[in-house]
Amino acid sequence: MIAALFATLAAAAAAPLPQAAPAALPSDPVEADWRAIPDDELLVMTLAGGRRVLIRLAPGYAPEHVANVRRLALARWWDAASVYRVQENWVAQWGDATEKKPLPPGIAARPAAEFDLSAFRPAIRLRVSDAYSRTSGITADGWAIASGRPGTAEATGAGWMAHCYGTVGVARDASPDTGTGAELFMPIGGSARRLDRNYTIVGRVIEGAPLLSGLPRSDAPMGMYATEGERLPIISVRLASDMPAASRPKYQYRAADNVRFAAMVALRENPKPPMIGLGGVDVCDVPLATRPAP
Amino acid sequence: MIAALFATLAAAAAAPLPQAAPAALPSDPVEADWRAIPDDELLVMTLAGGRRVLIRLAPGYAPEHVANVRRLALARWWDAASVYRVQENWVAQWGDATEKKPLPPGIAARPAAEFDLSAFRPAIRLRVSDAYSRTSGITADGWAIASGRPGTAEATGAGWMAHCYGTVGVARDASPDTGTGAELFMPIGGSARRLDRNYTIVGRVIEGAPLLSGLPRSDAPMGMYATEGERLPIISVRLASDMPAASRPKYQYRAADNVRFAAMVALRENPKPPMIGLGGVDVCDVPLATRPAP
Repeated sequence: MIAALFATLAAAAAAPLPQAAPAALPSDPVEADWRAIPDDELLVMTLAGGRRVLIRLAPGYAPEHVANVRRLALARWWDAASVYRVQENWVAQWGDATEKKPLPPGIAARPAAEFDLSAFRPAIRLRVSDAYSRTSGITADGWAIASGRPGTAEATGAGWMAHCYGTVGVARDASPDTGTGAELFMPIGGSARRLDRNYTIVGRVIEGAPLLSGLPRSDAPMGMYATEGERLPIISVRLASDMPAASRPKYQYRAADNVRFAAMVALRENPKPPMIGLGGVDVCDVPLATRPAP
Repeated sequence: MIAALFATLAAAAAAPLPQAAPAALPSDPVEADWRAIPDDELLVMTLAGGRRVLIRLAPGYAPEHVANVRRLALARWWDAASVYRVQENWVAQWGDATEKKPLPPGIAARPAAEFDLSAFRPAIRLRVSDAYSRTSGITADGWAIASGRPGTAEATGAGWMAHCYGTVGVARDASPDTGTGAELFMPIGGSARRLDRNYTIVGRVIEGAPLLSGLPRSDAPMGMYATEGERLPIISVRLASDMPAASRPKYQYRAADNVRFAAMVALRENPKPPMIGLGGVDVCDVPLATRPAP
């Protein structure tokens, strides 16, 4: 079976045998590990064609910018916006391509940058450094964070959120306080960690990331779509809390502050033979599971 | 300008003014830095629709497997093959979906694994570790390599090639010598570095990576396309040396064994203000430039 070609990487992906439930692995979540994502922390972006991108917001980590994003969504500001930039192995970006649409009232026009966190509190701390931080880990509520100058014992303030594939960052002009949250981007390929501490993260895509990372790339400078016809229209962006109750997507995240998540991370750091591991996993390669609420 | 939203990341991307050539930066290549990719080190994969993926082969690093790849290409083995697997934030994989096509004569059926290198000789060594290796760097001829157990002073043999976005790896069954090179894969998203030392790398995609990373993902197990209709047909795969001379693509790579490449890496490790950097860049985030030969 071609499937066997990656047998050593299949992890727990095999379908259970119909005649007996498989024994739970120490790294499997239990029901109590799944926590609700509140309706006002879930952004539902519907793209032309009707397919949806779901974004989990991080109000505990970037409160000012998430407050702006919520106001923009409640004001339906992104209706008739577009995905206007897709740069190979870098980012997809969306918002108002005309740069002319006035911001709704109540938006903080120049929110102070939220590039860094006030506290670095991972529930699970990874064993090794990476090229962009001395230490990193996963918060109890399932976010990838990092801290410290790599290769040194030097602190750098508390910490920051890591710009992993699928995170949603705030595009801005040169000045750190010029990102309102109206223009957002998502890394679509390899490492975007050199954006750490330079751009605010307001959340991460939990469903539909391929709808962005699979878009045609533009060869124009910075991957901007050169023509209006290339842009992918956004039909609407809504907070789930602003949708009729019966139609709201209900999602959960997997909490990290438990031995099962720790065991999952440990398996990534030290995979079972015959896989060869060297004791480390990158914070961006730790799965941050979410699921539709049962 | 929306373009200004990423002004701090534009590096040297601005178009030159028509009235004066811009001064060369210390990190810019000079003509002598560009080296030819030999015709027998360039694989030209034409996909349904006529668009091409160009793969630079690494015979100096995985000689047995590259020898097999060359034999397969010369035997036109991948004509009527397909891209049959695209797994979100992981890999695209291609080859013979039927698993029935006999290998041509002269193929090493069970080549010894070439997961590791016999020597670790970067021309440019990066300043900090990453989560998967104690040290890493770029070879003179432009390949990303790594060595050493992260977080320790422990050696791990010589070194290995890093599984970065765009690299081309050899899919295999569980036994290390079961990858002939007939089934190949490319990481399409975030880090695939946990494949280091587990899968042979035969090259990297230098043109057309989005043709693979932009494909629809399959939700079936391991991202395998469940139906024949989903597979993307491959029209042909040819070594450039096996094409009529007038039609061969001619490409060059940027050599790394010079002060200009070192300066480019140094800028990535310590970007100019207002960008904030912490002294490190990941080996997979070092641009490995190639260009059509002028």
